[in-house]
Amino acid sequence: MDSTAQQPKPSPAALKAARQSALMANAVRALAMDAVQQANSGHPGAPMGMAEIAVALWGRHLKHNPANPQWADRDRFVLSNGHGSMLIYALLHLSGYALPMSELRNFRQLHSKTPGHPEVGITPGVETTTGPLGQGITNAVGMALAEKLLAQEFNRPGHTVVDHRTWAFLGDGCLMEGISHEACALAGAWKLNKLVALYDDNGISIDGQVKPWFVDDVAARFRAYQWHVVGPVDGHDVEAVDAAISQAKASGDKPTLVICKTNIGQGSPNRAGTAKAHGEALGADEIALTRAAIGWPHEPFVIPEAAYAAWDAKRIGDAAEARWVKTFAKYKAKHPALAAELARRMSGDLPAGFAQAAVDAAVAAHTAAQTVASRKASQIALEAFTAALPELLGGSADLTGSNLTNTSHTPNLRFDEAGHGNGGRHINYGVREFGMAAIMNGVALHGGFIPYGGTFLTFSDYSRNAIRMAALMKTRVIHVFTHDSIGLGEDGPTHQSVEHAASLRLIPGLDVWRPADTAETSVAWACAIQSRSRPSALLLSRQNLPYAPKAGLDDIAKGAYVLAEPSEVGLKKAAQAVIIATGSEVQLALHAQAALAKLKIAVRVVSMPSTNVFDRQSTAYKTSVLPAKLPRVAIEAGVTDGWWKYGCAAVLGIDTYGESAPAPVLFKHFGLTAEALADTVRAVLGK
Amino acid sequence: MDSTAQQPKPSPAALKAARQSALMANAVRALAMDAVQQANSGHPGAPMGMAEIAVALWGRHLKHNPANPQWADRDRFVLSNGHGSMLIYALLHLSGYALPMSELRNFRQLHSKTPGHPEVGITPGVETTTGPLGQGITNAVGMALAEKLLAQEFNRPGHTVVDHRTWAFLGDGCLMEGISHEACALAGAWKLNKLVALYDDNGISIDGQVKPWFVDDVAARFRAYQWHVVGPVDGHDVEAVDAAISQAKASGDKPTLVICKTNIGQGSPNRAGTAKAHGEALGADEIALTRAAIGWPHEPFVIPEAAYAAWDAKRIGDAAEARWVKTFAKYKAKHPALAAELARRMSGDLPAGFAQAAVDAAVAAHTAAQTVASRKASQIALEAFTAALPELLGGSADLTGSNLTNTSHTPNLRFDEAGHGNGGRHINYGVREFGMAAIMNGVALHGGFIPYGGTFLTFSDYSRNAIRMAALMKTRVIHVFTHDSIGLGEDGPTHQSVEHAASLRLIPGLDVWRPADTAETSVAWACAIQSRSRPSALLLSRQNLPYAPKAGLDDIAKGAYVLAEPSEVGLKKAAQAVIIATGSEVQLALHAQAALAKLKIAVRVVSMPSTNVFDRQSTAYKTSVLPAKLPRVAIEAGVTDGWWKYGCAAVLGIDTYGESAPAPVLFKHFGLTAEALADTVRAVLGK
Repeated sequence: MDSTAQQPKPSPAALKAARQSALMANAVRALAMDAVQQANSGHPGAPMGMAEIAVALWGRHLKHNPANPQWADRDRFVLSNGHGSMLIYALLHLSGYALPMSELRNFRQLHSKTPGHPEVGITPGVETTTGPLGQGITNAVGMALAEKLLAQEFNRPGHTVVDHRTWAFLGDGCLMEGISHEACALAGAWKLNKLVALYDDNGISIDGQVKPWFVDDVAARFRAYQWHVVGPVDGHDVEAVDAAISQAKASGDKPTLVICKTNIGQGSPNRAGTAKAHGEALGADEIALTRAAIGWPHEPFVIPEAAYAAWDAKRIGDAAEARWVKTFAKYKAKHPALAAELARRMSGDLPAGFAQAAVDAAVAAHTAAQTVASRKASQIALEAFTAALPELLGGSADLTGSNLTNTSHTPNLRFDEAGHGNGGRHINYGVREFGMAAIMNGVALHGGFIPYGGTFLTFSDYSRNAIRMAALMKTRVIHVFTHDSIGLGEDGPTHQSVEHAASLRLIPGLDVWRPADTAETSVAWACAIQSRSRPSALLLSRQNLPYAPKAGLDDIAKGAYVLAEPSEVGLKKAAQAVIIATGSEVQLALHAQAALAKLKIAVRVVSMPSTNVFDRQSTAYKTSVLPAKLPRVAIEAGVTDGWWKYGCAAVLGIDTYGESAPAPVLFKHFGLTAEALADTVRAVLGK
Repeated sequence: MDSTAQQPKPSPAALKAARQSALMANAVRALAMDAVQQANSGHPGAPMGMAEIAVALWGRHLKHNPANPQWADRDRFVLSNGHGSMLIYALLHLSGYALPMSELRNFRQLHSKTPGHPEVGITPGVETTTGPLGQGITNAVGMALAEKLLAQEFNRPGHTVVDHRTWAFLGDGCLMEGISHEACALAGAWKLNKLVALYDDNGISIDGQVKPWFVDDVAARFRAYQWHVVGPVDGHDVEAVDAAISQAKASGDKPTLVICKTNIGQGSPNRAGTAKAHGEALGADEIALTRAAIGWPHEPFVIPEAAYAAWDAKRIGDAAEARWVKTFAKYKAKHPALAAELARRMSGDLPAGFAQAAVDAAVAAHTAAQTVASRKASQIALEAFTAALPELLGGSADLTGSNLTNTSHTPNLRFDEAGHGNGGRHINYGVREFGMAAIMNGVALHGGFIPYGGTFLTFSDYSRNAIRMAALMKTRVIHVFTHDSIGLGEDGPTHQSVEHAASLRLIPGLDVWRPADTAETSVAWACAIQSRSRPSALLLSRQNLPYAPKAGLDDIAKGAYVLAEPSEVGLKKAAQAVIIATGSEVQLALHAQAALAKLKIAVRVVSMPSTNVFDRQSTAYKTSVLPAKLPRVAIEAGVTDGWWKYGCAAVLGIDTYGESAPAPVLFKHFGLTAEALADTVRAVLGK
């Protein structure tokens, strides 16, 4: 692995560079091992093994400005092997970000800026939250896609205002995960030539030497995805990695994988090259041995000035951003509207007119009062919103015609042989639900777009952890989950959601909507688009749903509202009970209300398109919708567990798997009928 | 694609074979298009496109006996592209399985044996439930692994009683899914040479021609996994596919992918080769045109005798099984104990002594009353159970030392260069959670093993749909999910389960256990092992848990039991309230009970390791544990939603994400303390 063997004697300049590289790498190494030791928890192996790779990238290529981690045209860096968090914390600290040594000393402690895995929003310079393996590289694919699309949309001849790269570090674990297949195959298909992944090929995972369970020829695999592959190079040779990165940057039409052979825990005499280096502190004795071995005489958390000077990226970064600011000023002078639009898009602000467009769409739906599937209602809403919002970037995991995620404003995105896009705004993700979800997270994190994507609700299972990550990261991502219940019909139990609505509602920070008709769907879309710090999931029916007449539209956005008082069905008395329903079961609630009215039983129907949103309302509002003294009966074509928190006296649902049959047959088979609901209310009331 | 071009004039025998092949293929084609038309729902494209591939495999190679779909040494066939269900239904019907034409006419109707996607247990000859893409091929990997391990364990020189192949049909969708990467990489690592996948390379998925989003060089990708790749061959040339299959069968140390170039919907003049052939009925007009084009004059659901005769596999299958029965009889004569053990293992019965071993293990745990993490308690239980049960086949998704899934009886499984196993019983699955789960499903479906596998609870998200599929299929698979809450500590919110216990409990047919101590863990393991038709998930702590003293062990298996009455803490009055707790929070409940006792407040503590199991108990038992008149307070370090169904007056939990910090700091930070619990009980009681 020693690439300098057989070479002529190095020049004094080369020797000086090598000394500087070693100093820089060892500063990372020391901070990583000392912080993990201090916390007595963490992963020293990856930072110590990737230190020279980091020197090559962060020291020589990465375009960033520590003083402004939000600079729009910075390179994006993703540590996909997020357990190596001390690597990025060390790099951020050393290169000049607002991450003082006190934070590194506080590694993995409550409310520090140095949590166990990197978290976006906590630490300046961290672009995405990583740890769940495979998702970081997938976020990076999304970031690189966003950059490419923005560049093609906004750059003009002589005015290159979007021009940055996306870099990802990843390890064996990321490459074993299935999502790496989905993401990297798409990166190849999309010709994301400004994406560079640096693979920490150390041959070790937690269970030991990976050979018995990881025999992939990784280079061949990535070439099969139409990637450019460089290496293997010696990952401890900064010059070799530097040269590989330069090769990667020259790639005109393909993403690049740089394979770096490394030694996990490099520098530790007894732990390096073993799984023991991966995820536990080295211990005081081994740290002392390591200090001696790498020639690092400094106390823990003491970095010599020379190392700081070598790592300092503030001056270069500031100059780089200043150049870009000038470039942008010229662009703004020449293309003021484009410049304003790019600034708006990157800020995440919606156009001034959007709030009115949202109201108009809901009112239009209310006026038309169409009977359509809510997936179709979604497409109708999207038709208006994709016209109003060029930042809406749609897609589907190979179910476009079923999810109805496309509109007349969203041609399918295509790239020509040279990698140029066609300006399309609807992505055929292929059958890659998890990849789609984590790519959307990356797109949202990059900025400039509001990504949405569709699949069947049941397959939210495949993408579940990426949905969770979106919620944890507070990103604006919108999931369109159609075919939301046994209403899917003949495809049967493998495709019929039963537990999915309830289980998505459990993900903290996710807003789940299951609208009942066109107006609710339109409002749900508007709320999702306006929800800057929460992802949303829209659960939509395959089958047609009649419009549910309503007095007004304002309260839909509160997650639940009184849809029909007894007076709506001709009863002049106060409600004796409340029926809570969502989505396709709202019509059953209205029918049951009417049937009960004939028996002089007065019932209020509450439509609750979003339990999550309703739960955030004021107690006063909640009580106005669900008065304390009225018994409640809930109905939803799914598992019943989640409804008891509303103090229901009874819940109608399905606590088993579905069946393969036409939808109307199934609703009857599972007892989800207006008659059964009316009977349940009567039983609750003892009438 | 016409492999006969440029070839000499075919012989009369070849012509006859070609006519017979065409007859056989068109019988499949006709049944597929007619059944889909009758249901007005379904997927004709794949069956019509794969008809000749099916002729080659089912007509010439597949070892099976239609009269006995349970024959232990049959080949396993998996339709990974499960939407093409009419293909397997047609094949089962034509080859002689107990699947009469009336069932085919009833395609996709309630309670038919021909549901929309193939379902194991519903249709004789269907080996696994498929539809969620990528999982079928992964199940097949599990089946092939089971065969290989059983063969190496039970075959003896001159006595080859386990000797069958696993075949999978798959399409572009399966190959795009990430799980195909995980599964096929493992198949290569494990050298599963008796696994053959036939790839329906038709270049079409639901969104159209796949080229823009699926550019993988599939052959190169699979060679990178160390597979043998044959083709591409003309998938409509039965002889070419036949020859490719023969090549595949000759592979001594690698699984084989046969790439078959096909035309989706082959035979349909206007739909073939288009996405429109994929998932909807052809329509009466196009069906008439197709009949004319393929020369099929017969009415729908009428198959000529010659076609039945050509497809009939009953005689050959019966003879094959008869030969095996003789082979097995000789084996039994020579190796009676082995034969009895193999028969037992394949039957799924536990050894006679297991029930006692289970009791002994629980009693031993109770007697030792150790303070250990429940993941360690799990390893202690496994130490006993892996000794008692050679069928326990463990593993971990690269977290063996954390999940503690290994024991002294389960050496790591390894294969030598020639593909011979070392008799190991613990599988290093690598970082492949979803693949592990679906492989375990395949292992369980094959029979002969009870698979279990570990990862962190949070990463149950990755494998969620395979867990669901296990429950839908009623397979005995055991998931070991450790690090089950904020108790995981410093790794932070990406790794801390919050919603996972609650959300797993929502999966119908899955038994979720969250035991509080060594005895509960031991009983949970015993229940999981004895649960023949339900998968189980064991949720285990990273951190130490004190033993919870208890009067007896019998009721643990009921899912919840009275752990401590007020008398246990010296109060001589009846309980005024019930605290329900699970897992690591049971100790908090006991401390709160003691603290409340000092205030003369009498509380009963109920430990509820499995809500799912408890919910199945008699009303009498449930009421004995949770008396109707006593207010209830639940505590669990997770989202609260699921607990309201027990009529709780208050629930202590965590409805946000966790944080990165040491576990004790976090429990305090999130208010999960005995003090807070005692205060809550007092508030509920107004004392």
